[in-house]
Amino acid sequence: MRTVIENGWILTMDSADTCYENGYIIIEGDRITHVGKSPVPADLLAGASHVDAGGSIVMPGMINTHCHVSMIPFRTMGDDCPDRLRRFLFPLEEKAVTPQLVYWGALYGIAEMLLSGITTFLDMYYFEDQVAEACRDAGIRGFLGETVIGQKTCDSEAPYGGLDYGRKFIQKWKGDPLVSPLIAPHGTNTNQPEFLEKAYALACEYDTLYTLHASEMDYEMDYFAREYHQTPTEFLHALGVLSPRTLLAHCIHMTESDLDRIAAAGASVSHCIGSNTKAGKGVSPVKTMLERGIPVGLGTDGPSSGNTLSMFTQFRLFASFHKTENRDRSLFPARDIVRLGTRTGAKALGAADRIGTLEPGKQADIVMVERNSINMFPCYNPYSALVYSAERANVDRVWVAGQERVRHGRLTGLDETEIRRRLLEQMPDFLEKSREFASII
Amino acid sequence: MRTVIENGWILTMDSADTCYENGYIIIEGDRITHVGKSPVPADLLAGASHVDAGGSIVMPGMINTHCHVSMIPFRTMGDDCPDRLRRFLFPLEEKAVTPQLVYWGALYGIAEMLLSGITTFLDMYYFEDQVAEACRDAGIRGFLGETVIGQKTCDSEAPYGGLDYGRKFIQKWKGDPLVSPLIAPHGTNTNQPEFLEKAYALACEYDTLYTLHASEMDYEMDYFAREYHQTPTEFLHALGVLSPRTLLAHCIHMTESDLDRIAAAGASVSHCIGSNTKAGKGVSPVKTMLERGIPVGLGTDGPSSGNTLSMFTQFRLFASFHKTENRDRSLFPARDIVRLGTRTGAKALGAADRIGTLEPGKQADIVMVERNSINMFPCYNPYSALVYSAERANVDRVWVAGQERVRHGRLTGLDETEIRRRLLEQMPDFLEKSREFASII
Repeated sequence: MRTVIENGWILTMDSADTCYENGYIIIEGDRITHVGKSPVPADLLAGASHVDAGGSIVMPGMINTHCHVSMIPFRTMGDDCPDRLRRFLFPLEEKAVTPQLVYWGALYGIAEMLLSGITTFLDMYYFEDQVAEACRDAGIRGFLGETVIGQKTCDSEAPYGGLDYGRKFIQKWKGDPLVSPLIAPHGTNTNQPEFLEKAYALACEYDTLYTLHASEMDYEMDYFAREYHQTPTEFLHALGVLSPRTLLAHCIHMTESDLDRIAAAGASVSHCIGSNTKAGKGVSPVKTMLERGIPVGLGTDGPSSGNTLSMFTQFRLFASFHKTENRDRSLFPARDIVRLGTRTGAKALGAADRIGTLEPGKQADIVMVERNSINMFPCYNPYSALVYSAERANVDRVWVAGQERVRHGRLTGLDETEIRRRLLEQMPDFLEKSREFASII
Repeated sequence: MRTVIENGWILTMDSADTCYENGYIIIEGDRITHVGKSPVPADLLAGASHVDAGGSIVMPGMINTHCHVSMIPFRTMGDDCPDRLRRFLFPLEEKAVTPQLVYWGALYGIAEMLLSGITTFLDMYYFEDQVAEACRDAGIRGFLGETVIGQKTCDSEAPYGGLDYGRKFIQKWKGDPLVSPLIAPHGTNTNQPEFLEKAYALACEYDTLYTLHASEMDYEMDYFAREYHQTPTEFLHALGVLSPRTLLAHCIHMTESDLDRIAAAGASVSHCIGSNTKAGKGVSPVKTMLERGIPVGLGTDGPSSGNTLSMFTQFRLFASFHKTENRDRSLFPARDIVRLGTRTGAKALGAADRIGTLEPGKQADIVMVERNSINMFPCYNPYSALVYSAERANVDRVWVAGQERVRHGRLTGLDETEIRRRLLEQMPDFLEKSREFASII
């Protein structure tokens, strides 16, 4: 089965940033076989099904390197409440999150990501098996890790239950075409050091990614300074858990030596500009990270922290924040920002051989962004249009692994209304338990 | 003719921030006559036409306090080019902007604003008569000023031609129900002082607003320091042009004494966070401005500078930037940000008696934001949903002065496709002339 996408403004995001103002892509099975400038060679058209991109921007599926997708039920709850993680998110999660809520929350959030052009996401949460099922049911690519944390959780009475859950989860999903399992200790200061090490040993044993929140919180920085006279990064380095399999989420508060250690270890960073700045936490030094060769992907964070599950929100915030931090309009031209959300994101996930660009041999993860809506005209520079103008609603068609998951802004295989209905069915107990926090949310 | 809007989550944005989770609004002619909690009193229903808001968020029409709407043809052109105003915007405007381009660009941009829930905008440009015609044709509320500037422009061979044009423009449009004419000297450093004074005298003579760019550019700050040993604000104050009729756009670089002078004069500020930060210029000290009682409205700036003509873009950027600047998540909770885009914006335009809130006696400028789309669920806090999640595509219905201008996301009185076609017809000469700048755009 061969599909030809024609008449697109194709941004391959390959290493030369090759772009065809009028180009084509050919998909066979789950892969891209050809990308080029129109016209399509006649011999490739025979027997193929045909998609007219109608001048749309065609780009690689966007890659969301940090999420807690199942947190949909928390969205718009106490957005402006300081220290919300400890004041109501942790306690409410522990009391009220169920496997069903995780599944339907994940399916809802995955639908939202597909509709906004995200074809791959990294997730860390509880009952991660349910997130994996949702990925399989929705046909999105997931890098999924069970959370390991030194406290009672919704899926473990005992602290660190995620370690056993995580081992079984990795064993179950290893080798799946869409789900790449990994292990996700919650953060630098929410695990005792030996459990950070144990989780790392598990990642090494099964050759998976290892992701955790790092250098995000003021109190985390204070804790490591006080207890260890170290930064969290120095601490992780001394523990021996920084390597190319390590993906650090946030990294807001960084010293020069932190950046040296991350770069030398070959570790990656997930930068969540929307979540970090909505919380007033600060701006990660991404310019310096990239100068040192650290792969930096973009992340929406969970819908409770970042609200939209759209990379376009991150693009616009990224541009404004990093240009302003550096007082330089020319820094991070739009193309460089789109690259972070595609090719560099793939690299941060250790998956650059399979996804992140439109090139022959890569997985057919493809997004078509229409230019007919009022906000998308004129378009002299498609990267500019994506970074400064586009929104979720401009996403027209999406393929993951060669399967069309969104057509004309609608899910092909899922019923949005039904997902919301099923999620709502799971929410009464959650809402009841949230009343305990009514005064702060 | 009476219209009843029922079953809305009504954010009145009145001085008590009154909100009805299930409420109604009644419109008669161009005004709101009643706002309240459901059910609607039976005697008010008789003979009325009925709109079911279906749980949508119903808010005052948003107010865009700074724009150059006719710059649509420039959008995505050289977005990341430093000093683009002097390097290609001024020269290309002077060579290529025609009355027809201004009219069709304005109509296009006005359509975009209506579709994103903006019902009032302030504009400064050339051939401003064409912008006024576009407002009348589209049925949007415009505070419009011809630009006065000390150089040749597209509508005047001689410098300062805008002063004569502006006088005629004010005479022509004064008293119009939708168009409020004003005068708009371009900026502090692009007019000789006597012309800033002449423009101010004109504003006083006709009792109009007076708006200009101020404290926006690094080179502007340097110029006043060098030439006058003053800040631009000190200079404007000494010139006697700061008063309640003065609306200063941008005000990024402010001293304490600048803020004192603006507050004491009763002048207002238009804050364009998207445009300012995309340019890497810096973040205006809005927290301090508001503490001193300065009315601060939000502005999209022109589509060349701000790209989207959507207040939602400004809301999200505003939250992230001001919380981060002040390292305080609790600062500017979402409701305060929505207030800037509605009630405070009206105050900044000197129009708080007519627009900016949903109250009996006010103009019926009303926006309905649906909550069915995937990004708008859940919604515990409608302000949060507007600031952190909403986008143009969530705007369902819009009324200006009691006239429905958008229904179910479509313009009622204008044909979007036809506007784009007519605008494109006007663009070949503009595009030809833009080639001169091909190396930088």
